[in-house]
Amino acid sequence: MSETQFIDAYRDGFVAHLKARTLMKDPQNLYAPIQYILGLGGKRLRPILTLMTTELFGGKAEDAMDAALAVEMFHNFSLVHDDIMDDAPLRRGKVTVHEKWDMNTGILSGDAMLILSYQFFESYPAEMYKELTSLFSKTAIEVCEGQQYDVDFEIRDDVTIPEYLKMIEYKTSVLVAAAMKIGAIVANAPKKEAEAIYEFGRNLGIAFQLQDDYLDAFGDPETFGKQVGGDIMENKKTFLYLKAFEKATKQDRESLLHLYSIKPEDSTAKVEAVKAIFVESDAVGETKAAISEFTQKAFDELEKIDLPKESKALLKKFGEGLMQRTV
Amino acid sequence: MSETQFIDAYRDGFVAHLKARTLMKDPQNLYAPIQYILGLGGKRLRPILTLMTTELFGGKAEDAMDAALAVEMFHNFSLVHDDIMDDAPLRRGKVTVHEKWDMNTGILSGDAMLILSYQFFESYPAEMYKELTSLFSKTAIEVCEGQQYDVDFEIRDDVTIPEYLKMIEYKTSVLVAAAMKIGAIVANAPKKEAEAIYEFGRNLGIAFQLQDDYLDAFGDPETFGKQVGGDIMENKKTFLYLKAFEKATKQDRESLLHLYSIKPEDSTAKVEAVKAIFVESDAVGETKAAISEFTQKAFDELEKIDLPKESKALLKKFGEGLMQRTV
Repeated sequence: MSETQFIDAYRDGFVAHLKARTLMKDPQNLYAPIQYILGLGGKRLRPILTLMTTELFGGKAEDAMDAALAVEMFHNFSLVHDDIMDDAPLRRGKVTVHEKWDMNTGILSGDAMLILSYQFFESYPAEMYKELTSLFSKTAIEVCEGQQYDVDFEIRDDVTIPEYLKMIEYKTSVLVAAAMKIGAIVANAPKKEAEAIYEFGRNLGIAFQLQDDYLDAFGDPETFGKQVGGDIMENKKTFLYLKAFEKATKQDRESLLHLYSIKPEDSTAKVEAVKAIFVESDAVGETKAAISEFTQKAFDELEKIDLPKESKALLKKFGEGLMQRTV
Repeated sequence: MSETQFIDAYRDGFVAHLKARTLMKDPQNLYAPIQYILGLGGKRLRPILTLMTTELFGGKAEDAMDAALAVEMFHNFSLVHDDIMDDAPLRRGKVTVHEKWDMNTGILSGDAMLILSYQFFESYPAEMYKELTSLFSKTAIEVCEGQQYDVDFEIRDDVTIPEYLKMIEYKTSVLVAAAMKIGAIVANAPKKEAEAIYEFGRNLGIAFQLQDDYLDAFGDPETFGKQVGGDIMENKKTFLYLKAFEKATKQDRESLLHLYSIKPEDSTAKVEAVKAIFVESDAVGETKAAISEFTQKAFDELEKIDLPKESKALLKKFGEGLMQRTV
């Protein structure tokens, strides 16, 4: 099978399991929103990483299904609550839960999803269950902390690059890392190797988020899922912005400050002006360098793992695929 | 020590533990609301029940502190999210979290509290941890379901008494029951006895909630914590209402329907008229009978437990104390 066929097979198996394990029940107003958000699709990136990692370490994907489901359920819980906080109308091109039902339904169904995530781990024996759920709780708290930092940063104008990197690490990459480590734990991988795969996922997750920052400004509108320039329109202080602010000339820095204080109705000129400063200051080059650096760090972690060359190649290819998407 | 001194000692020990285990950390906007709500006080009924039950079964209260903290943290999580859903301005006489900060802070800090609850169980060995957290997840899901039923019932006019009892069981009494069973598990109590103490708590919790329904209409305004008549003003279909509707004459039933369709600015006359029907239809007598029945069921469960007479007497006294409060 090709890499894509592999991934499709994991996804199909996972979606079948998800459907079988999340049947409708009473009270329907609590469970219908859960079925709805889980049914919207998405790439299923995180649960696939769990299944893939279990097999890499010699386990059976089948045995990792409930763990993968916990990860996907948690991810969707965070989407439902984040969408309320951001007052987002759409998710994956469909109306969000709080728009389709109401805010209270979004809060309560989200809470239930967080609890259900823990319940899916109950199919594992006690020692493994404790290891899995402890990692899961640590990760979940970090995701909340990352979300809080993101909110805090909106009104701060002294955010440093290390702070920004910590925020995206918590908000995005620890869950990717945990999804993989969870797969390793299910396969009874040695502790050191489970830790290395966590570091692989963590670094790759940071690279992935930096790539997302880059694509948000410079991606191809035809293939990039979101509106190109969206972060700039929202005055979002991304890695590109922080680097540009650090490296730009005094004059460009003042322009950037001004541009990030306005929200014009037609943002075309603003977006172009900001992008010009991103290029001029070499924030673009610095961002690309950081993406390569974190990707390389991720690949270096693989060297610590005693796996067949082909397995490592698959992980690398998967990582490279993530990095080369839709530029 | 008298019973009250016993309870005060448990409460003091618990509050000291709570303070030591919930220190401030970054991001402060996530953790400050958690400290705030936990610091508002309250009776600490649930964690005291956990500690008390551990000692009843020969364990040390000290060993149950983290479990009690998990229970209290979960209870406060549910208060923070419920207050958002009810748009409540006050909690324990102080401004609610979403009023003091904002809604997003309430959602996110609540989420973190739910996750922290699970983390407090990590101090127990794997087998016990799994038993504790599985019971905890089951309980937490039931609390969400109970909250959903409560919301659903607001717009339904065909709620039956068994449905109502299931709603209050889930929304209120399963957490009281779980708080006690958690104490029993920490003390390594035999399974059958842990189950009996759960049933004791569950039945006592239902009696407690029915008592709350009764006091809301007929309590002494001087001693009842909430506004007397509040449920009637809000047209809340409590046990009293459902029983009255079942037992009243045709004419009174029609009056009741009318009274529960209006929200007059001055509700004095409405509250008095409804209370008169509650008395006339003997809904009051039926409610008192149901309270006695569930209290008796709770006490019957104690007979299944091999504990010294004095220990059972303490539990009974505690139960009777709850039932005799502020009539």
